[in-house]
Amino acid sequence: MFEAAEVGHRISKEEYKKREPELRHALLLAQYRLLEKGNFPVIIIVAGVDGAGKGETVNLLNEWLDPRHIHTHAFGDPTDEEAQRPHMWRFWRALPPKGRIGVLFGSWYTDPIVDRVTGKTSQGDLVQSIEEIRHFEQMLVTDGALVIKLWFHLSKSAQRKRLKELEKDPKSRWRVTETDWERFKSYDKFRKVSEYTLRETSTGDAPWMVIEGEDPHYRYLTAGNLLLEALEARLAAPAERRKPAAAHLLPELDSRNVLNTLDYSPSMDKKEYVSLLEKYQGRLNILSRDPRFTKRSLVIVFEGQDAAGKGGSIRRVTAALDARQYNVIPVAAPTDEERAQPYLWRFWRHLPRHNHVTIFDRSWYGRVLVERVEKFCSDADWMRAYAEINDFEEQLVRNGVIVVKFWLAITKDEQLRRFREREQVAYKNHKITPDDWRNRRKWKDYERAVCDMVERTSTEIAPWNLVPANDVEYARIMILETLCKSVEAALARKT
Amino acid sequence: MFEAAEVGHRISKEEYKKREPELRHALLLAQYRLLEKGNFPVIIIVAGVDGAGKGETVNLLNEWLDPRHIHTHAFGDPTDEEAQRPHMWRFWRALPPKGRIGVLFGSWYTDPIVDRVTGKTSQGDLVQSIEEIRHFEQMLVTDGALVIKLWFHLSKSAQRKRLKELEKDPKSRWRVTETDWERFKSYDKFRKVSEYTLRETSTGDAPWMVIEGEDPHYRYLTAGNLLLEALEARLAAPAERRKPAAAHLLPELDSRNVLNTLDYSPSMDKKEYVSLLEKYQGRLNILSRDPRFTKRSLVIVFEGQDAAGKGGSIRRVTAALDARQYNVIPVAAPTDEERAQPYLWRFWRHLPRHNHVTIFDRSWYGRVLVERVEKFCSDADWMRAYAEINDFEEQLVRNGVIVVKFWLAITKDEQLRRFREREQVAYKNHKITPDDWRNRRKWKDYERAVCDMVERTSTEIAPWNLVPANDVEYARIMILETLCKSVEAALARKT
Repeated sequence: MFEAAEVGHRISKEEYKKREPELRHALLLAQYRLLEKGNFPVIIIVAGVDGAGKGETVNLLNEWLDPRHIHTHAFGDPTDEEAQRPHMWRFWRALPPKGRIGVLFGSWYTDPIVDRVTGKTSQGDLVQSIEEIRHFEQMLVTDGALVIKLWFHLSKSAQRKRLKELEKDPKSRWRVTETDWERFKSYDKFRKVSEYTLRETSTGDAPWMVIEGEDPHYRYLTAGNLLLEALEARLAAPAERRKPAAAHLLPELDSRNVLNTLDYSPSMDKKEYVSLLEKYQGRLNILSRDPRFTKRSLVIVFEGQDAAGKGGSIRRVTAALDARQYNVIPVAAPTDEERAQPYLWRFWRHLPRHNHVTIFDRSWYGRVLVERVEKFCSDADWMRAYAEINDFEEQLVRNGVIVVKFWLAITKDEQLRRFREREQVAYKNHKITPDDWRNRRKWKDYERAVCDMVERTSTEIAPWNLVPANDVEYARIMILETLCKSVEAALARKT
Repeated sequence: MFEAAEVGHRISKEEYKKREPELRHALLLAQYRLLEKGNFPVIIIVAGVDGAGKGETVNLLNEWLDPRHIHTHAFGDPTDEEAQRPHMWRFWRALPPKGRIGVLFGSWYTDPIVDRVTGKTSQGDLVQSIEEIRHFEQMLVTDGALVIKLWFHLSKSAQRKRLKELEKDPKSRWRVTETDWERFKSYDKFRKVSEYTLRETSTGDAPWMVIEGEDPHYRYLTAGNLLLEALEARLAAPAERRKPAAAHLLPELDSRNVLNTLDYSPSMDKKEYVSLLEKYQGRLNILSRDPRFTKRSLVIVFEGQDAAGKGGSIRRVTAALDARQYNVIPVAAPTDEERAQPYLWRFWRHLPRHNHVTIFDRSWYGRVLVERVEKFCSDADWMRAYAEINDFEEQLVRNGVIVVKFWLAITKDEQLRRFREREQVAYKNHKITPDDWRNRRKWKDYERAVCDMVERTSTEIAPWNLVPANDVEYARIMILETLCKSVEAALARKT
């Protein structure tokens, strides 16, 4: 696929001078229309062979466009805050909000390609990375992002020539490092791995554009025109939402489901509770100080019907931990900064660093629960969320994060009893709102949503723990016990 | 001031058991009222002698209160992202938003005290740090924050006893490190420096509370009651805004001011412009790659009347830099996350790391310009902003950030000419809005605000550069030249 970028493309200075002002003007207008509409972000990935003019092109784009609404990110070695989180975390933090252009210099492609070239990873690892990238970009595109991927190419002889030229000129000598020559030695390997990666990730929605990098005028005009065409096409397109192929949900043929077949009868007397509470809190506390945990982190998800006891359960967990080590995130309506980003962005930002715990009181599952039932998002949005969530959790687990998910299940009668109690007890008053009564009327819809959720997102790597919670004490102990066992099992596994 | 915390305070287990449930209940109610009102943040600083029960108290507060709305921050060694910014940056990022409680474990007090005790800094340095802290806390309080400062104290003999106890118990042995014993050796020095620091920073609005740490029941009840009283008093207080003592602005006795006495006549012909542009852009580019800049960073502020040419000037600056090195922040209306924080928070979050440049297109000066003139904030708010801004810029400069501020000044006639041009030229259309015409009608008010701003915030460490900008080319060259000279001078100075 690189042959077409080794044909010696060339644009004369005269022609460049003739075409540049018009292109520049059109680009600027398109950028202002994007800013005004503000309904999608533009992500430009710049990658390719060293010396093929990546940096110059990015600088030129910044000169042509209004630099106030572009943000260029260069990814070198991860900072320590980044190194302690799943590897995609640094890219999530760099995503441009709607209406803006983000230029990513070095991206999620750099490590998979370079690690494979240097032999740090196997072909199987590369295949897995490519699969992750495809899913990630698919998510971005479906969410509305315009993703433009530019690969700047040089033939082997052209790269050698280019590096020598840069070295000869005292003004540019600083730009050629030993790493560049080191990498040049593995040009052939690099080319092979890159070609494979580009081919596999050149999807209809986010295709690669390979640009011959030797002649500056050619590469500038090509990159500029590509960007312009993509922007204009997208700005002209109607704001149509993609529909999923079909609603792949199982029909309900009988009335049995994972919630109504749960055994709600178990209970626990106070004395046993006090003794087991102490036991499991102690065990959890010791686990939180386990030397193996210093290179891991823990994410706990609490979901459940209203009044199922999430708050009380969370407090029994936090009581076992040092306050400096955990953070509880109550999930409410997104802020406007969060609304300008893909759905999962507001959860990525709270991921714990090593040796830390984040507890989500409600979570990314809101998409397939309340947002589905209340129709806050389109069917297409929540339908695709299952796969996105599974990808997300898989990424966490593969990067050493321990993920434990709880659904606290109560029966409809028990919920009624608790609502009434809350209304009657003065200091529990704040816990009951008209919303709670309204949600209760949709009990069946929520039940259906929960069952679909469990069916689709209870995976081997991040299974749902369904906790019958009619008896508060029993539920809390089951949660603590499950938590301890899950953490112990995860710490025992190699990552 | 520590004597009162060495009297052997003690609460019996029975009394504690009697009083704890009531306190706990009241605290929880107060926390929910805070959350509901959502109009001020609570900042709890926890400091004091090692072994005096700081950690246990914080854990207990998290147990008593709803941990979903508290965020505990422990500050150890700064991460590399923090180390490359002014030292207060990490605390700004940790401030709780309105309605929430932030517990700061280790805070802006730790370094000044420890550095003085270990002899790393002089008494003069400590005095300066204290001054900065007073200003910072004053800002927080005036902005509405409830600041509660708890110091947990132990006498020397009590500390020795406590460390030995912890060491004896296998369960708590891990908590006593060599650093603790190292620090214990300098108990007397630590006590002296702490006492001085506490005395000097115990202001009426943010007083220190010294709590004897030996008896757990006593320290828990005391800390809990202090927090409860402070919260209840604040929740009961009317939402009254503080007035400044008096409006200390100079009267306008004649019509001369810094703007109308500026010489607007200088201009530059195209040929000279092109040659000087290349010269200064080249010089700036070399400066941006100066080895001394790798430990520094640069903040450039652009302010000016509408149509004064900020955008074009910024593009002449960015054209000299590598896109990976700078970031332009166009300042518009704050997001809701920004509105839940003190005014300067949204600028702190964009401060550049080492070797990077942030260019603000409009800035924190909006407070004393548009917000003052359009009455978006109270008189008290913009009056106090002058001092807050000076403190802010002083902190930047003292931490190695190079700060360069430009006011682009045009005359009223020239503005009219440019507005008309913008209306007539198609591709400049987006640059002119009804707001521009409305602002123009308030020319006098804005002029007054600018003159007050220059008088109050053109400091030796961060002076205003007033640029007559009727001639676009002249202005751009003056900006680039001033920028080069300012950066050169700053790099030549030791930090």
